[in-house]
Parts: sequence; structure tokens; C-alpha cells
Amino acid sequence: MLMVEIGLPYELILVDRKANAQKSESYLKLNPTGRIPVLVDNERVIHESAAIGLHLCEKHPQSCLIPELGSSERASFFQWLFYLTSSLQSELMVYFYPQRHTENVNEVAAIKSAQEDRITEMFALIDSALEGKDFLVGNRVSMCDFFLFMLSHWGSDLPRPPLSFLHLGQYLKAMAKRPSVVQASALEGTNLDIYR
Amino acid sequence: MLMVEIGLPYELILVDRKANAQKSESYLKLNPTGRIPVLVDNERVIHESAAIGLHLCEKHPQSCLIPELGSSERASFFQWLFYLTSSLQSELMVYFYPQRHTENVNEVAAIKSAQEDRITEMFALIDSALEGKDFLVGNRVSMCDFFLFMLSHWGSDLPRPPLSFLHLGQYLKAMAKRPSVVQASALEGTNLDIYR
Ligand SMILES: N[C@@H](CCC(=O)N[C@@H](CS)C(=O)NCC(=O)O)C(=O)O
Ligand SMILES: N[C@@H](CCC(=O)N[C@@H](CS)C(=O)NCC(=O)O)C(=O)O
Repeated sequence: MLMVEIGLPYELILVDRKANAQKSESYLKLNPTGRIPVLVDNERVIHESAAIGLHLCEKHPQSCLIPELGSSERASFFQWLFYLTSSLQSELMVYFYPQRHTENVNEVAAIKSAQEDRITEMFALIDSALEGKDFLVGNRVSMCDFFLFMLSHWGSDLPRPPLSFLHLGQYLKAMAKRPSVVQASALEGTNLDIYR
Repeated sequence: MLMVEIGLPYELILVDRKANAQKSESYLKLNPTGRIPVLVDNERVIHESAAIGLHLCEKHPQSCLIPELGSSERASFFQWLFYLTSSLQSELMVYFYPQRHTENVNEVAAIKSAQEDRITEMFALIDSALEGKDFLVGNRVSMCDFFLFMLSHWGSDLPRPPLSFLHLGQYLKAMAKRPSVVQASALEGTNLDIYR
């Protein structure tokens, strides 16, 4: 989404997670954490989705996707970005891969259920933060909004999906109409019908 | 540690976690996530430890704790910072508070044990990254090093503690000698004897 928003040429190479291709020798050379994604930008190789996003946005400041150094929105931008990555994203990962976090496979349901509550609380907090606002930070779109859209979409099958929240729901519907979101989703095969 | 390193005046107000003071009405007004820490910098209130750190380091560029915009270390800095916060820190939180991630309190040991393996793998990855290096990013101290020192110290009681890794162990011993680390630890009551 960020690359389309900025207008960058790129080649998308899908990693076959079902075949555990992210743990292959050649992939680990690019990203030793064995996780998806990784960006290859000429001789620079970067892992961590948020670091990749910051790299792209900082390299193309004309896109204005990060509040400028010294601006009043700067701290709020990083606060939300770290909240999204270190809290929401990581809790979603426990929800999606509970079996990795216990030695007792029978307990996966008890973990998933606890995670549902935690994640719902986090989306509720974000919902409040969006009251009366079109964007998470300040009054223009930032990298955080694309990150939040991605994580919210991941949560579509939760008992209380992000789209069902008042402010967050409106926000997601508006984000889903952005040309960059539409175009990137089409490329990736992500269906946006639920946001219509 | 960052405030001492930069040389900033500050007042440390401890939050009584045992009394759940981080969920009190007055604390939630400052930090709606109900987590520690929060920074009050005049009229600005910031949560998320890494966002607080970035704010302090960016506000005081003479401290050179973040590689400059456009420098070759910049992307690597953010890559490691997000790895530390979204992977290592969040996995440590599951390790320390397993009961929050399951509805079955009897399963806490199975979660702790799985987390030990995951976290040990992460410290091993960091250990390799530190081979032949004095600092995590480039060849000077950055905010990432203070973050890594903090998380490593949290992991001191793991079956395979960070200090027991070859490169990471040397690195931690050197970090523990930095005047800012010594001074901040004394203030907080953190005992650094294990690093001697
Ligand atoms: N902090 C990393 C996390 C990446 C991550 O966990 N990616 C998932 C896919 S969304 C993955 O690679 N899962 C497969 C695995 O862990 O083996 C980032 O944001 O890039
Ligand atoms: N992503 C947050 C996480 C903060 C966090 O989880 N803090 C812990 C203390 S180290 C806490 O507040 N625990 C008490 C609680 O969760 O109620 C940050 O880095 O600031």
C-alpha cells in the first residue's frame, strides 16, 4: 500500500508460508528472523514491516506520510506506530499462532479466547482515539493509517470485528476507498467487499 | 538511561504495579493503554517506551543516539528497534504474564516453557548480530543499545540468560560500565553486579 501510495516501482515476490519458505536458507540470508516481509532496496536489505515502511516514507518525504521532525504530531505518530506494532500486531500473532506459545496443543483454544478479549480491548481503545477524526495522527493520512488498516483487516474474523466499531468502522470504510489501498489489495488478491 | 545519557533533568515517579496503579483513573488519563511508562514533557504526554525514547533523542540531536536521516545506518536502526519492541519485548511480556494469555490458569507453565525457547532463539539471533561489533547499529552507541540492555536485563533469570551468550555477554558487560547505565540503575535500584 505504501509503495503504491508513494508511487514506487516494485516487484512483489510472494513467500510460500505453507511450505515454510520463510525458513529456507536463501530467505534466512535476507531476513535472519525467518519472518515475512523483507525489502530489498538495491544493496540495502531491511526486515521488520514498520522499519520498511519508515525507510520508504523517509526516502520519499514528498509523500508526507510521516509528520516532520519538530512538528507537534511527530511524537504521536511514533506512539501509535509502536502501539500498533508492539501491542496490537504482536497480540494478533499470538491469536493466529497460539500453538507456538504453549507446549500443550490442547490449550490452544484457551489462548485464542484470551487473545480475543485482549485484542478487542485494543481495537476499542483505537476506536475511541478515532472519535471525531479522519486519521489516527493529526489531520492527514500517515503511515500509521496503512498499518492500522492492515492489522484491522487481519482481525476481520474476530467475534467483534474492527469494522463493527463505530469510529473505527467508518474510518476503515474510508481507508478502503483510497486508490492506493484499492490497487494494492487487487494486486495481493485481498477482497475489500466488506468495506462497501 | 536515555535521559541520563542525554543529560536531561527529570523527575521519576514510580507507579505501583502491585496495587495496579497503572489502571487508576488518573493514570489512564495520561496513558489510556494502562501500561508503564508514560512521559510528561510539558504539555506533551507520550506513551510507548520506544516512542518516548525517540522523542527524547530527536529533541536532543547533539546526543547522536539515532543515526541521521539519510545515513546508511538509519534503516538498520529502525529495523533493530522494531525487532526489539515488536518481537523480543512482546515475547518477554508473554513470558512474564502468561496468565493473561490463556483462560486456563493451569497452563501457565506450558506457555512459560514455550516462551523460554522462543526468547532464547531471539537472544541467539542478537548474539550473532553482535559478533565483532561493539554496538547493535553501526559503530557507535544508539538508542537501540539502551533498549537491548533493558530487555536483556529483564531476561536475567531465563534458563539461558543473555549474559551467557558469547558476544551478547561481552556487550552487556561493556554497556553496564557506561556512566549513564550505572547512574540510572543506581537511581532505580537495579543491581548491576552480575555484569562485573
Ligand atoms: N515484527 C515482524 C513480524 C513479521 C511476522 O511475524 N510475519 C508473519 C507473517 S504476517 C510471518 O512471517 N509468519 C510466519 C512465521 O513466523 O514463520 C514484522 O512486522 O515484520
Ligand atoms: N509497548 C509498551 C508496553 C508497556 C508495558 O507492557 N509495560 C509493563 C511494565 S514493563 C506494564 O505496564 N505492565 C503492567 C500491566 O500491563 O498492567 C511500551 O513499550 O511502553
